[in-house]
Amino acid sequence: MIMKPIIITKASGEKESFSPRKLSKSLKKTGANINLVEEIVKGVQKKHRLNKTKDIYNYAFSRLKKSGPPFAARYSLKRAIMQLGPTGYPFEKFIGEVLKYQGYYIKTNQIIQGSCVKHEIDVTSQKGNKHYMVECKFHNQPGKKSDVKVILYIKARFNDVKQRWLKNQIDKKKTLQALIVTNTKFTSDAIRYANCAGVNIISWSYPKDNGLGETIEKLNLHPITALTSLSKSQKEFLIRKGVVLCRDIKKRIHLLKQLKLNNKKIDKILEESQLISRF
Amino acid sequence: MIMKPIIITKASGEKESFSPRKLSKSLKKTGANINLVEEIVKGVQKKHRLNKTKDIYNYAFSRLKKSGPPFAARYSLKRAIMQLGPTGYPFEKFIGEVLKYQGYYIKTNQIIQGSCVKHEIDVTSQKGNKHYMVECKFHNQPGKKSDVKVILYIKARFNDVKQRWLKNQIDKKKTLQALIVTNTKFTSDAIRYANCAGVNIISWSYPKDNGLGETIEKLNLHPITALTSLSKSQKEFLIRKGVVLCRDIKKRIHLLKQLKLNNKKIDKILEESQLISRF
Repeated sequence: MIMKPIIITKASGEKESFSPRKLSKSLKKTGANINLVEEIVKGVQKKHRLNKTKDIYNYAFSRLKKSGPPFAARYSLKRAIMQLGPTGYPFEKFIGEVLKYQGYYIKTNQIIQGSCVKHEIDVTSQKGNKHYMVECKFHNQPGKKSDVKVILYIKARFNDVKQRWLKNQIDKKKTLQALIVTNTKFTSDAIRYANCAGVNIISWSYPKDNGLGETIEKLNLHPITALTSLSKSQKEFLIRKGVVLCRDIKKRIHLLKQLKLNNKKIDKILEESQLISRF
Repeated sequence: MIMKPIIITKASGEKESFSPRKLSKSLKKTGANINLVEEIVKGVQKKHRLNKTKDIYNYAFSRLKKSGPPFAARYSLKRAIMQLGPTGYPFEKFIGEVLKYQGYYIKTNQIIQGSCVKHEIDVTSQKGNKHYMVECKFHNQPGKKSDVKVILYIKARFNDVKQRWLKNQIDKKKTLQALIVTNTKFTSDAIRYANCAGVNIISWSYPKDNGLGETIEKLNLHPITALTSLSKSQKEFLIRKGVVLCRDIKKRIHLLKQLKLNNKKIDKILEESQLISRF
C-alpha cells in the first residue's frame, strides 16, 4: 500500500513531510522498548489530524507517560528547557551547571568593566588557560530564532571586554573567547557571521552532534522541569534555591522537606530523577 | 507672592520642576511675539492641572495655533517628526534629505556586503573624502531611548562593512565612519560607549547645539507632517512620493493636483510651508 506523505507544520511555521525514521530515533533515545516505539509511529501515521509538530509531540508524550514517566520526561527535554522560563535567569543558571559538569569553573551574573563601559555578563567560565564570556539567549517560544543582530551586539561587547582584559593579562598563554548559547535556533545569517567573526555558538542542535540537546542527553544533565512528580510551583522553589538539575536533587533533600513533602513522595521524586538522569 | 514649584512628569516618566524660562525660550523660537509668549507662560502657571509635559505642550500649541499656524507648526516639530511613523522608513528618507541639504551625496536603503555577511544600511552619505554609514533609529513614542545594545550592534556591523571597504579602497585619503541618528534620546551608557568606540551619534538634543532638533530649525528643514493645512492621508501620499520636507512641496505642485486640491487650497498649503520653513 502506498501511503500519502503527511505534511506537518513546525513551530517556526515551516512545513516538511513527516519522517517516521526521525520520530522513531527520538523515541528510541528515551529508552522505551522497540515495540512501543513502533506502535507510536504507526499511531501517528494513522491519525491524520496530527499535522503539527506539537500535536505529534503531545500524542507521543502521553503514550510514553502511560508506559513509564522517565521515558516521557526524557522525550520532553526541549519543552522542559522552555519551562525554565518565563525569564532568562534559570536558563543562565542551567547553562552554568552544564559547563560546571564539563569541568569549567563558572560564575553567573557578573558585571565586567570593558574598555569603554560596564557589561552584564550572564556566565564567565574557565578551564585551564581557556576563558569564556558566555551569553545565554533564552526563548520561551519554540520556532523563535536569534538573528544576526544578537551576534553583532555580543561581538562588540566581547571586543570591549577583551580589549581591557588583554591590557591586564600578563600570562600570554591565557585566551578569552565569546560563547553564545540558545535553547532554540540561530538564523543562517547569524551562523554565517558567528563563524566568520570567531564567535562560538551553540543552539539546540548546532553544532551537529554537539548541540545543547545532545550535550544534555550525553551527560545526563536533565533540568528539574522535566520531572512529572513535582508541581510547577515546587520546581520554581527549587530553581530559586539553585537546584536546576535532576541529578542535584539528591544532595538537597532538605529543600524537599521544606516543601512539606512526606517521605513516600520524596522517594518517588528521587526515583524519577534517578531514572531520567540515569545516575 | 511666593509660588509653589510646579512638578511636571516628562514622557519618560521622570519628574522635574516646571521651568518658565525653558518654556519661554521654546515659544520664542517659533517667532511668536513676546506678549503672546508671556501670556502662555502665565497661563501654564495658573492652571494647576497642567502637570504633564504633554498637557503643557497641548495648551501652548492650541494658543499658538489661534495666533497663526506657522508658530504652532514650528513649536510642534518634535511631534511632527514622530508623525513620520509608524514605520521607520519615512524617517530614514527625512534624514537622507537633511544630509542632502548639508551637501552630502546620499543613497537610502542599501544592501552592502561586509567582510562576513550582507547588511541593510539605512543611508550611505558622502562629501569629498568623507563617507558615512548612517543608521536611523526611529521611535514613535516620546521618552523611548536607544540603549547601548543598539550602538554595540551597529558598531559590529560597521566593523564588518569597514573591513571589506578598506580592502577595496585604493585612495587612502578616503575615510569611512559610522553615524547613528535618533529622533528621541540615547541612554547615558549608550553615549559613553559611542564616544569611546568612535561612533558618531545624533539625538534630538545631542550633541549640544547640534542635535537633530536644532539642525532642522537652523536649516529650516521642517517635515511636511508639521503642516496643519494637509490631512494625515494627504501627508502619507506625499511621503510615499518622496516629498518629506515643507520646502520641497513647491517643486512638486503636480502632486497636490493629483490629490484633487483646488488652487485656493494649494496656495494655502504653499503659504504655510513657506512660513514654516522661512524659505
